[in-house]
Amino acid sequence: MSSIHSVKRSQSHLAWDNSIPPVIIIPSGDTVTFSCLDASNGQITQSSTPNTLSSLIFSQLDQLNGPVYVQGAAPGDTLQIDVLSVDTADWGWTALIPGFGLLSDEFPDPALKIWKLNKEEQYAWFDKEKGIKVLLRPFAGEMGVAPGKKGAFSTIPPYATGGNIDTRHVCAGAALYLPVEVEGALFSIGDGHAAQGDGEVCGTAIETPMQVTVRLTVRKDRPYTKTPHFQTAATGGANVRDGRGGGEAQYYCTTGVDSDIREATRGAVRNMINFLETEYQLDRVAAYMLCSVAGDLRMHEVVDMPNYVIGMMLPTSLLRGARA
Amino acid sequence: MSSIHSVKRSQSHLAWDNSIPPVIIIPSGDTVTFSCLDASNGQITQSSTPNTLSSLIFSQLDQLNGPVYVQGAAPGDTLQIDVLSVDTADWGWTALIPGFGLLSDEFPDPALKIWKLNKEEQYAWFDKEKGIKVLLRPFAGEMGVAPGKKGAFSTIPPYATGGNIDTRHVCAGAALYLPVEVEGALFSIGDGHAAQGDGEVCGTAIETPMQVTVRLTVRKDRPYTKTPHFQTAATGGANVRDGRGGGEAQYYCTTGVDSDIREATRGAVRNMINFLETEYQLDRVAAYMLCSVAGDLRMHEVVDMPNYVIGMMLPTSLLRGARA
Repeated sequence: MSSIHSVKRSQSHLAWDNSIPPVIIIPSGDTVTFSCLDASNGQITQSSTPNTLSSLIFSQLDQLNGPVYVQGAAPGDTLQIDVLSVDTADWGWTALIPGFGLLSDEFPDPALKIWKLNKEEQYAWFDKEKGIKVLLRPFAGEMGVAPGKKGAFSTIPPYATGGNIDTRHVCAGAALYLPVEVEGALFSIGDGHAAQGDGEVCGTAIETPMQVTVRLTVRKDRPYTKTPHFQTAATGGANVRDGRGGGEAQYYCTTGVDSDIREATRGAVRNMINFLETEYQLDRVAAYMLCSVAGDLRMHEVVDMPNYVIGMMLPTSLLRGARA
Repeated sequence: MSSIHSVKRSQSHLAWDNSIPPVIIIPSGDTVTFSCLDASNGQITQSSTPNTLSSLIFSQLDQLNGPVYVQGAAPGDTLQIDVLSVDTADWGWTALIPGFGLLSDEFPDPALKIWKLNKEEQYAWFDKEKGIKVLLRPFAGEMGVAPGKKGAFSTIPPYATGGNIDTRHVCAGAALYLPVEVEGALFSIGDGHAAQGDGEVCGTAIETPMQVTVRLTVRKDRPYTKTPHFQTAATGGANVRDGRGGGEAQYYCTTGVDSDIREATRGAVRNMINFLETEYQLDRVAAYMLCSVAGDLRMHEVVDMPNYVIGMMLPTSLLRGARA
């Protein structure tokens, strides 16, 4: 049985920076529970109004809890993050922040919606009068490891090492894989989301404080992890309550992270080809064809500028019988 | 009971051009069965080799069957296409065609794979030795109406009026909506695909001859249809056999079609906001937020240059209880 460590709300930092000392040091395979404020770092509360947005201190946003030093992790390794549970608060917020979001030029005014979350039944009324409700499926928008490069990097864009990937599929039951660039990996987490679609198009999800538990494991056997990869929860697992048809299929996903959408897309496909080549000994032409006839391109994140996260998702059912 | 009309293989054309006379004239609400050669227009057969690709006559590719004149359709209307059945041949092909595909610069050589399709059990072996098989889910890659603009336009790129949208979700049980630009709509169809992922990244799917039956209905009540919209098959319907987890949820999808991926993405979201505003009387800010917390961006087609098709997909379960 692995030990459970904990990281408190106050143990947070405001940049990706490999010089930030770890708050805890753990053996590979142990689990950690993080208590996290929402992505406004507590600046938005249940009683906030759109006026609150005009006084937001931007330098305080998207704080991260950690970093956690995982013993044995070295540059070139992969850190596997098994998401065991994500427990949100009973409220959340969604905002239009001027200058932020895919259609920011068409929505110049600030707007704020405060949600009550029915955690028991995993939904929130979007508009009770109209009968529209959103199914909850919590995850952490930010999961990442420290960059190898010296310096302090913004926590707003996602990177090849993860961070603000805002990828809704990494909910409880999913496994995320990140490339390690420094000794100990220096993993951090934050940005609780109670629900989000692929893209997070207005720039925010249902933002909420959360308590999240993950298992952190060093993997020496995945040299092809150059950007975030993930495997979604198995059907019948945590996805069942997502209201999207009684459980989605399970997928393995490779991502591309780039400031050019097309290059991010190309990267996602190239990374899947590399994965299939290494893990299933497919030749590259066959792997490319398999992506075309059975793999799905999704836009996980299109607002955390300057970088986009595009995913190439392949159903694991396809590979389950595969012999390498 | 609506009448069933038919369009033969030989009743095909090679451009989108509103001066091409209709092959049949039908009342709105009638059904039509089309027999279609594969997208190579019969140039590739079960005995073809990669050498066949070097002698392909490109001007013969992506032929369309039709056009069908639907009585009562006028510019500004919407044509609803209910896909009733798609029956493929028992073989298909996937190719890498030099200069075509998302990674064409990295895959310069032609390649051709001939598939045997197990229609009874709806799968095809991708690699029997390795145990990898692809589940079949046939659809027509091309469905479109004639452009309002005079002239002959290539059938390779998709347009706001549809055409080569290569969108895997419009299989049997789905409904596609296209904006009508000319009297009679002038609907055509082609490009049978036995299976494809979102994106069609290598440039081809499992290409196959097909027999496809659709119902064509003029809709006067959808002024917001400016690009292809569609509703996927209900769970428990045609999707059940897709092997993607026991049936996907049902979605309503708006698309953006543009030569710039980001603009196509913005268009998809803007079109969903317009749809929610008109059909559900949501205010625009609320609709934008709903897309962010519950709508999924998918890249349906990224290879039919110069235009991309991006979709914003919203689960219909969300709207089912909605009162406008």
